[in-house]
Amino acid sequence: MAVPGHRLDRMFNPEVVAVVGDKGPMYMWLQNNMPFKEKGGRLYSVQLDEKEIPGIEALGIQNFRSMADIPEPIDYAIVAVPRQVSPYVLKDLIANGAHGAAFFTSGFAETGEELGIKLQDQLTAMAREANFNLVGPNCMGLYLPRSGVRFNADAPVTDEGKIGFLSQSGTHGIMFSLVSAANGLYVSRCASFGNAVVLDVADYLEYLMLDGETEIIGMYVEGVKDGRRFFEVLREACKRKPVVVWKGGQTEAGARATMSHTGSLAAPQAVWDGMMRQCGAITTNNLDETIDTMKLLLNSKRPKGNGMALMAQTGGQSVSITDAFAKSGLRVPRFSDATYAELGEFFNIVGGSYQNPLDMAGTIQGSMDTLDRILRILDADPNVDAMAMELSAMFAARQWKKAPDSLDKTIDTLAAHQARSPKPFLVILHPAHEAEYVASIAPKFHAKGIPLFPSFERAAAAMQRVLAFENR
Amino acid sequence: MAVPGHRLDRMFNPEVVAVVGDKGPMYMWLQNNMPFKEKGGRLYSVQLDEKEIPGIEALGIQNFRSMADIPEPIDYAIVAVPRQVSPYVLKDLIANGAHGAAFFTSGFAETGEELGIKLQDQLTAMAREANFNLVGPNCMGLYLPRSGVRFNADAPVTDEGKIGFLSQSGTHGIMFSLVSAANGLYVSRCASFGNAVVLDVADYLEYLMLDGETEIIGMYVEGVKDGRRFFEVLREACKRKPVVVWKGGQTEAGARATMSHTGSLAAPQAVWDGMMRQCGAITTNNLDETIDTMKLLLNSKRPKGNGMALMAQTGGQSVSITDAFAKSGLRVPRFSDATYAELGEFFNIVGGSYQNPLDMAGTIQGSMDTLDRILRILDADPNVDAMAMELSAMFAARQWKKAPDSLDKTIDTLAAHQARSPKPFLVILHPAHEAEYVASIAPKFHAKGIPLFPSFERAAAAMQRVLAFENR
Repeated sequence: MAVPGHRLDRMFNPEVVAVVGDKGPMYMWLQNNMPFKEKGGRLYSVQLDEKEIPGIEALGIQNFRSMADIPEPIDYAIVAVPRQVSPYVLKDLIANGAHGAAFFTSGFAETGEELGIKLQDQLTAMAREANFNLVGPNCMGLYLPRSGVRFNADAPVTDEGKIGFLSQSGTHGIMFSLVSAANGLYVSRCASFGNAVVLDVADYLEYLMLDGETEIIGMYVEGVKDGRRFFEVLREACKRKPVVVWKGGQTEAGARATMSHTGSLAAPQAVWDGMMRQCGAITTNNLDETIDTMKLLLNSKRPKGNGMALMAQTGGQSVSITDAFAKSGLRVPRFSDATYAELGEFFNIVGGSYQNPLDMAGTIQGSMDTLDRILRILDADPNVDAMAMELSAMFAARQWKKAPDSLDKTIDTLAAHQARSPKPFLVILHPAHEAEYVASIAPKFHAKGIPLFPSFERAAAAMQRVLAFENR
Repeated sequence: MAVPGHRLDRMFNPEVVAVVGDKGPMYMWLQNNMPFKEKGGRLYSVQLDEKEIPGIEALGIQNFRSMADIPEPIDYAIVAVPRQVSPYVLKDLIANGAHGAAFFTSGFAETGEELGIKLQDQLTAMAREANFNLVGPNCMGLYLPRSGVRFNADAPVTDEGKIGFLSQSGTHGIMFSLVSAANGLYVSRCASFGNAVVLDVADYLEYLMLDGETEIIGMYVEGVKDGRRFFEVLREACKRKPVVVWKGGQTEAGARATMSHTGSLAAPQAVWDGMMRQCGAITTNNLDETIDTMKLLLNSKRPKGNGMALMAQTGGQSVSITDAFAKSGLRVPRFSDATYAELGEFFNIVGGSYQNPLDMAGTIQGSMDTLDRILRILDADPNVDAMAMELSAMFAARQWKKAPDSLDKTIDTLAAHQARSPKPFLVILHPAHEAEYVASIAPKFHAKGIPLFPSFERAAAAMQRVLAFENR
């Protein structure tokens, strides 16, 4: 058990999972959770529709026509039934002694309808009275990559997860899980909690804060019910781990959209921002910024100052990388005299430049010794706090495609630098006209833990966020 | 001839091209320009190094040991010789009666060296006296896709170009040409003009403004020499065609980088911005923004107001797309009562939402009739000035991969809408974890002229820029 004694511990480390009301032909929820069964978990189905039962049993899953027949208490249930039926299911779960359940079922207060509001109130009252851990409703529930409990069939099953993620949106929870994995970053535990009528973001956050597997925390949140408790827990969590908070509904129109999505009432954005600063949370505005920031937090050393050494492959890109980092509030200082003296020994003044930024011209396509030498010189420069390097597929793709070994050697040289240097290092790999090729080679960088960004602006924004966090 | 009588017309429509000083084993400049020869242009080489001549002749290109031997006047020459030799080459070009030449050669004032500055002054004086059209030096010269004159071997040869592009950076000129083509947008004429010692951006801009093939103009510029003339020409150009201006060196550090790149002295950014507004130019900060804006300018109807109809595939994305467009200054208004009445006939309130934004849930994976119906209803709504739709590969990729026909049908439905609607329309196609797949299908959208964006934020920024241009 990861956080013994915590009220959510059994649900976050389940041995018995039940799916209630899954339907063919896809049997989405049972299929999503087959890895849990394969790992030795007890996976049950509850379905009384005779038409559905053969399909369920064909998956090798034991089906019960009534929850009362399940021979042991459920740790975590996934409920996918029509909204009118949900109170009856909750009653059965409580009778079973179940520890908690996610209600995928939607159609509650987020519709604004009288019936939806009434049903939601009913669920809430029942769960509160029974001290039942109700996740949602109107949510995708838990994703526990180590246990094999999943909310999406493409989400990886892995023990490598270090990111705890909380999401009031099912889509954003799934997208985070998939896009972070595509970036070589894995989730430890994720909860999509939708309307959050019983368990709110603070409850999950408290668990992630205490959870030893979770090194950093991220969340997408549209609104919190008990603001005081949320900020208390967040302040405590930020003292222990970096917490990245992506708020949905930052604009008036966006806040209206959160009403129909999860029935959330938004706090005034300025108040929210002030509280985030007080807590020491890192704020982001979308999925890309959230993942970019986490990539640096997890895979890079932490910056001690804002002096960037910038390396581009041409003169035009030297200007662009400088504009991007300077606009984000980072400095592009002169190098030390020793650095200029060393670079001057082999840099050619015609067609290249070794101010900061370095116009590296053909270095990437050339000898790895030169690249290594440059990295060592900049690493030793006391004016340099962090390093960012452009890799342009426009110049290198032709060579890399012809001799894939040359790409591997480049990555090895960069990874060796990253391992020995105490300074943050990141790479901007451009698509240019090579988007498909760039997407195909990105995993090679991820596998070595080299933080990879698709644009100067996104890299600079991530660096600035991590720096602000370090200086909080 | 495209602009008869203009001083640059012969160079921009060449029949005789000479490459001076190209070298093996690549013979980059001759290879780049083989399409010119294949299209019937007379392509000559000037090279006196005996070692290089067999390689040149093996390409089927006639080599001359002396420029004086070329039997006709050159329309456009590309000069790739050591910097010390460049004045002698210019002298020969003038003697030949050549109309103009791009000097790829670098190592001039941008180095800050005495020799470089002296050589640049010498070239400048000689060219001015002879009224010679010197492009550069320290540049990639011209890219004329219709003529087959190119500065890069991957740049397309095409008659479809509608974008005139000017670039003080060779890389940005090439990147623009390649990345715009990867987005289904093609260049009419492009000039990379580097140090701009004789011909400055205003000279090229004047030509593009008058050129009938060029519908919109873009430029990357680090500094202008004759500010008054530049702004006069720009003001006139903006009256005739949309002009997108990407300024390099917007920050103090970036301006330092322009000094070593093209020897440009930057104007104070606030002054520059004010002049851009006065001229009615559209300003951008990087290549992506430049291409995004041009994509809407070329492929979309022009907006008459800022009321956006937003369509997302899930509730979470409904919030995110709304935040992104609202932050960019666009409105997300209520639909008309008639629209709500019509949507209410088939939208299910449980699991979907048809406020603005529309949470379209499974519509994209479902019937094209429903998608078509929604597009027609929103198109008819008087509160809607423009429409933006999310297509999430997270949901659709599985189906599209299994049945590629379903993707084609979706694109056809969107293209038919775009053709009949008087309102701007754009699509955001997400990578999520499907970056490689998304890159592989993007050309299908480009082929139909559907403006495609990789993120809500980039789409919103482009729409806002085009709207500001329309309201200038």
